[in-house]
Amino acid sequence: MARAVELAAFGLGTTSPNPVVGCVILDAHGQVAGEGFHAYAGGPHAEVVALRDAGERARDGTAYVTLEPCDHTGSTGPCTEALLAAGLARVVYAVPDPNPLAAGGGERLRAHGVEVAHGLLGEEAERVNVAWLTSVRLGRPYVTWKFAATLDGRSAAADGTSKWITSPEARQDVHRLRATSDAIIAGIGTVLADDPLLTARPTQPVPDTGAVSDAGAVSDAGAVPEKGLDGAMREQLAEARRRARAPLRVVVDSGARTPPGARVLDRAAPTLVAVADSTRTGLQAELVRLPYRPDGLDLHALLKELRRRGVVSAFLEGGPTLAGSFVRQGLVDRVVAYVAPALLGSGRAALGQAGVSTIAGMHAFVFEEVSMIGPDLRITARPGTPKEK
Amino acid sequence: MARAVELAAFGLGTTSPNPVVGCVILDAHGQVAGEGFHAYAGGPHAEVVALRDAGERARDGTAYVTLEPCDHTGSTGPCTEALLAAGLARVVYAVPDPNPLAAGGGERLRAHGVEVAHGLLGEEAERVNVAWLTSVRLGRPYVTWKFAATLDGRSAAADGTSKWITSPEARQDVHRLRATSDAIIAGIGTVLADDPLLTARPTQPVPDTGAVSDAGAVSDAGAVPEKGLDGAMREQLAEARRRARAPLRVVVDSGARTPPGARVLDRAAPTLVAVADSTRTGLQAELVRLPYRPDGLDLHALLKELRRRGVVSAFLEGGPTLAGSFVRQGLVDRVVAYVAPALLGSGRAALGQAGVSTIAGMHAFVFEEVSMIGPDLRITARPGTPKEK
Ligand SMILES: NC(=O)c1ccc[n+]([C@@H]2O[C@H](COP(=O)([O-])OP(=O)(O)OC[C@H]3O[C@@H](n4cnc5c(N)ncnc54)[C@H](OP(=O)(O)O)[C@@H]3O)[C@@H](O)[C@H]2O)c1
Ligand SMILES: NC(=O)c1ccc[n+]([C@@H]2O[C@H](COP(=O)([O-])OP(=O)(O)OC[C@H]3O[C@@H](n4cnc5c(N)ncnc54)[C@H](OP(=O)(O)O)[C@@H]3O)[C@@H](O)[C@H]2O)c1
Repeated sequence: MARAVELAAFGLGTTSPNPVVGCVILDAHGQVAGEGFHAYAGGPHAEVVALRDAGERARDGTAYVTLEPCDHTGSTGPCTEALLAAGLARVVYAVPDPNPLAAGGGERLRAHGVEVAHGLLGEEAERVNVAWLTSVRLGRPYVTWKFAATLDGRSAAADGTSKWITSPEARQDVHRLRATSDAIIAGIGTVLADDPLLTARPTQPVPDTGAVSDAGAVSDAGAVPEKGLDGAMREQLAEARRRARAPLRVVVDSGARTPPGARVLDRAAPTLVAVADSTRTGLQAELVRLPYRPDGLDLHALLKELRRRGVVSAFLEGGPTLAGSFVRQGLVDRVVAYVAPALLGSGRAALGQAGVSTIAGMHAFVFEEVSMIGPDLRITARPGTPKEK
Repeated sequence: MARAVELAAFGLGTTSPNPVVGCVILDAHGQVAGEGFHAYAGGPHAEVVALRDAGERARDGTAYVTLEPCDHTGSTGPCTEALLAAGLARVVYAVPDPNPLAAGGGERLRAHGVEVAHGLLGEEAERVNVAWLTSVRLGRPYVTWKFAATLDGRSAAADGTSKWITSPEARQDVHRLRATSDAIIAGIGTVLADDPLLTARPTQPVPDTGAVSDAGAVSDAGAVPEKGLDGAMREQLAEARRRARAPLRVVVDSGARTPPGARVLDRAAPTLVAVADSTRTGLQAELVRLPYRPDGLDLHALLKELRRRGVVSAFLEGGPTLAGSFVRQGLVDRVVAYVAPALLGSGRAALGQAGVSTIAGMHAFVFEEVSMIGPDLRITARPGTPKEK
């Protein structure tokens, strides 16, 4: 199953709106007969790839799958059918499918006489698939909020300058994370201040230099080496990368103040400008109209719309005001902080108003991972209280 | 030499105003014959302890010492004499003595026909002795600024509440660090707001729970296990602890606004209140009068006065205003940040005005160590630019 989780990770960044899934098939003697992972939406599922790899050796064997095999006919046939046709004796899956449309695979297999078990390495399999599982369970994309700040929590100096607080290595790491997301979100404040491109421009996967890493690390596609994949799987991966679309750029801009010449509107990637439903504008851009709440656009409505468009994981780049709204509404599933070894003592804070007035009300997280990225620290946290860890 | 550095660390927190020193003696056959460290001011030096341990076996042997042996007669005789008397063939020391009074030991030994080498594990030996070396080189105590904040750099919520941002484990770790310091400094703002005791109340040494630790870790006394010490050295250590004085508490308070009933004035430890030289006050406390500069008391004068009183390492506890002044004037040698896995989005920042107006002027540090302390991160940084690392 550990290998299946490893295989699943190869799909990160290219399977949306589908989950990442890995599968290993052992023959009747317990020898590895086939391996597979799901590489891109519309492509063969992990089980099918692995069964193809195993051929006749799958008969009376065992399949290890990171997610409960699907039981519905999407763009490919149900995996339960394929597993039954191959004559497997046993199927072990890590995480039950939370998707009502696809669930029931385990039961179906059992009804046909296959021995079924689940839960093995569930935590690891959850982690590799956390974005997709979250999006299915909560009905909205998994949101990662990224910020860069000094050790004293400042994102800009007193005069507003902020280039560059963090190192080239950290900025490259951000591009890598962007590339594994389906959408990149920024507020109009950031667009007006920085005129950012909001595209993913990873050059090389940046290896973590640091020894300071924890077991709870979240894998990201760019960091996964391709070695250990056979020819067929390499082809799948190459096809997935050919099909990969640039992440959707999203500007949260109730009054449609995005300048027509903003770089975020260039042709490098698709862009969506979220405006208030009452806003009249001649802006030449794809608009989505959302209800306006006292504190800005309805972010739940925004995320729902993004999910409708197949966005499983969204990367929130700020600024502080928009991030404050996301945090206040409990819409941040992961924080990735790039912390520079520097002190400012004044200037813009990394996070704006997040609805907390007293210490008891602070938003509680748990640290998940810490790495050195060049001279900077990358700190990852997820919502929760320490005791839950 | 690695063992000598390890031995030196046992002295941390009890040797001021002396350095920590460790010594290992090998006999003529290269077998360990004796070990020692300097445990308390007025007690025997590391070389003397190790020579006593080695006895006759020292003859024609080699001594490994973390610091150049002293050549002056203080409360004990010069170590060079003792080494010569024992008939050592070779002396290897890690770091030259920067103290003009004590230096020259290497030359003296060489003049008497002893083979002398130095530099071995110099970096490690520097690190264990960094407080003392800094105090000699700069003529002022080594200053550690400690702060506790959320991941977004807030030290208090919007309503001023701040108890407890960090965990009991982190607070316990602070007590451990306080105990290794000779003085604990706070601003009058903190005294008025929190009425802190500013004493070191470590219970048990708190073991680091985290895997997230770097090679560059700075050792602190409380974290050093006592195993591996023979009877004589254990006695030294016990004696050092009996003699250990509570760190001096220092309140930076130009107008002598410290309330007579403030807990910092209790009998638990000595306290010094630094006031402006023009301040008239009837405050029943030991006062030190310092020049007043436009932005507060002259901190260089304060540190000079502390050094005069034998303070080698000072622990600055803030608040943000006072810490800003120290940072601005380049008087912080180490930052220890306890970062809680929480977000506030408003409230007091961890660091106040530090004289930076634009990003190019930010105070540059390098990260030295990161550990998990309970649910919190402890991040240690020292001044410098990444390239120097
Ligand atoms: N260090 C970093 O990691 C980082 C990252 C990004 C940005 N930044 C910096 O952040 C600064 C800009 O940030 P900012 O805080 O001024 O602006 P922002 O967060 O980018 O955008 C805030 C604006 O978004 C609009 N908005 C619409 N609905 C909202 C809602 N529900 N909640 C919050 N905002 C909503 C509002 O303007 P309308 O009412 O007009 O819609 C609001 O003023 C720049 O200086 C940039 O350099 C730093
Ligand atoms: N999270 C943490 O780690 C932490 C640690 C400590 C404190 N705190 C919090 O910090 C808050 C208090 O901090 P604060 O910033 O208000 O006060 P502070 O930094 O403790 O004290 C500042 C005061 O010190 C005096 N001072 C004298 N010479 C100075 C100089 N050269 N530079 C700066 N100040 C000088 C000034 O008052 P005079 O002009 O009257 O002398 C100044 O107002 C409290 O809420 C406390 O809870 C947090």
